[in-house]
Amino acid sequence: VTRVSSPRRGRIGAVDLPALVEQARDGQPLAVARLISLVENGADSLPALARLLEPHAGRADVLGITGPPGVGKSTTTDALLRALRQAGRRVGVLAIDPSSPFSGGALLGDRIRMGEHATDRGVFIRSMATRGQLGGLAAAVPQALRILDAAGFDIVIIETVGVGQAELEIAHLADTTLVVLAPGLGDGIQAAKAGILEIADVLVVNKADRDGAHDVARDLRQAQAMRGQLDPAGWAAPIVKTVAARGEGVDEVLTAIDGHRRWLAGTGTGPRRRQARLTAEVIALALGQLEAGVRELVGTEEFACRLADVPMGRTDPYAIAAWLRAATTD
Amino acid sequence: VTRVSSPRRGRIGAVDLPALVEQARDGQPLAVARLISLVENGADSLPALARLLEPHAGRADVLGITGPPGVGKSTTTDALLRALRQAGRRVGVLAIDPSSPFSGGALLGDRIRMGEHATDRGVFIRSMATRGQLGGLAAAVPQALRILDAAGFDIVIIETVGVGQAELEIAHLADTTLVVLAPGLGDGIQAAKAGILEIADVLVVNKADRDGAHDVARDLRQAQAMRGQLDPAGWAAPIVKTVAARGEGVDEVLTAIDGHRRWLAGTGTGPRRRQARLTAEVIALALGQLEAGVRELVGTEEFACRLADVPMGRTDPYAIAAWLRAATTD
Repeated sequence: VTRVSSPRRGRIGAVDLPALVEQARDGQPLAVARLISLVENGADSLPALARLLEPHAGRADVLGITGPPGVGKSTTTDALLRALRQAGRRVGVLAIDPSSPFSGGALLGDRIRMGEHATDRGVFIRSMATRGQLGGLAAAVPQALRILDAAGFDIVIIETVGVGQAELEIAHLADTTLVVLAPGLGDGIQAAKAGILEIADVLVVNKADRDGAHDVARDLRQAQAMRGQLDPAGWAAPIVKTVAARGEGVDEVLTAIDGHRRWLAGTGTGPRRRQARLTAEVIALALGQLEAGVRELVGTEEFACRLADVPMGRTDPYAIAAWLRAATTD
Repeated sequence: VTRVSSPRRGRIGAVDLPALVEQARDGQPLAVARLISLVENGADSLPALARLLEPHAGRADVLGITGPPGVGKSTTTDALLRALRQAGRRVGVLAIDPSSPFSGGALLGDRIRMGEHATDRGVFIRSMATRGQLGGLAAAVPQALRILDAAGFDIVIIETVGVGQAELEIAHLADTTLVVLAPGLGDGIQAAKAGILEIADVLVVNKADRDGAHDVARDLRQAQAMRGQLDPAGWAAPIVKTVAARGEGVDEVLTAIDGHRRWLAGTGTGPRRRQARLTAEVIALALGQLEAGVRELVGTEEFACRLADVPMGRTDPYAIAAWLRAATTD
């Protein structure tokens, strides 16, 4: 694998997009990296890029990995990556950090994580932030998936930093979502539990050699039962205990993922999920464009005048919002 | 304090809004609770409510409390609440859970937390979710603040569940934002640090009796220095160590908050923050309306037809987004 620094906007204007796509399809990591940089920077060529990639996409399995901070998501990703490589599968990893627009630390992290796979073309690891793209990560991640998919990666892992609204949305982009938990995290898990159970296709209790792992697994099973998620007609997310740092339980996780993949195929849920992913991307793009229009108006004198009338009770936030909406669409 | 269950939409249609606002201004907790329920449920009367409240608002200090899960945010809120009551100040608390649309657990939590203050009209604690309001919590929280402000609470504490994008936005609604951390949280703090330092007016290192508290404080100070946040011309967020469960350090936190309030007053930053809060509310409302329009179109046959053309490369997500945008504004 190779890592290139992000080209600046403008310097890539002369790029031959069809040639770059061909190079990416040929498995050239430099081409893949340059295409993802285009997505991050919001290049004008993104619509054309989507059309070039789309006929070659739709083959990769997308695996989402999420969970609270400190549970060992990166360690789990790395362990799965190693096991999948041993099974001969090509694996791309997108590490998503919605909370930070600064990619400096992430790039350093990429280099460290890729060290082990430095000469392996079957592995591509990349941290993603968005600088220019309208719609933010919710629009950029599907486009990056399209690149890795067309580049022939069998599995693309989307790893997110924590469990928040943005992470939940990104998890919805996956075919199979792993939620990683660990004992001893206290209130965080309780707070996140409703959201976690809603999105998890496989539940991983990592650091299973620590006290409390059994309790976490039992609590999760009880919560699933209470929510009617153990109905034999549906998919009951398996709960797998791991010690990812030692590779323990990783085969069981892969078996659970395979089981989910078969379930998706058998029920026709797979295509529906991909349809949902495309819909989410389009919505994020449309809302991004509308938001840009609204924020432009917010900088105007007229907006300031209307806002100044609120404390007197002469107008209200709802009336100004209606004006913003109408003016944006003019 | 009194807690009423949320009235359903429709059952509150006959409400005499000016009378309810007068009762809230008179400090009647039932009226305050009913008004906040109106906000949660997205009643049609919200614009009128904003106009009735606004002339009586603008007095309360808004204190945001955020931080990663497990650091003791609720404990810190409760300790501050107790200390502020002893100082004779009326305190409202809004506990925000952006990740969960289900308020069942939150309501139970309210009852437990309010037990201590059950007969005290100077305290009002409420968990908030949004069911109906356009713009979600980013629009609903400012309206709820307006209610508590007009009801004469001197301080309104907004407590959020974790550090994610939504929580960061909500923290921006506050005059003073406390970020609570604790030793032993590992990667979570590292990942969130950039965002934390950007929003923190006061940094609280809770559970300071544990190993590593000194290191957390030192790391934060170094990170502040690296980001140029110790410039004497600006506000350097004080770092206060607490053991909130035993009330230790709480007075120092209040002193730090007072210092920040004086700085806001001295630099004219206070009115600018309130202006920013109103702007954020209006933007959230406008984007909420636009999003509702987009989602309506997403349900149409025409959208499905356009989407089906993407895998063939006949159209692309960007073109469909442009169509959505134009059609929404028709």
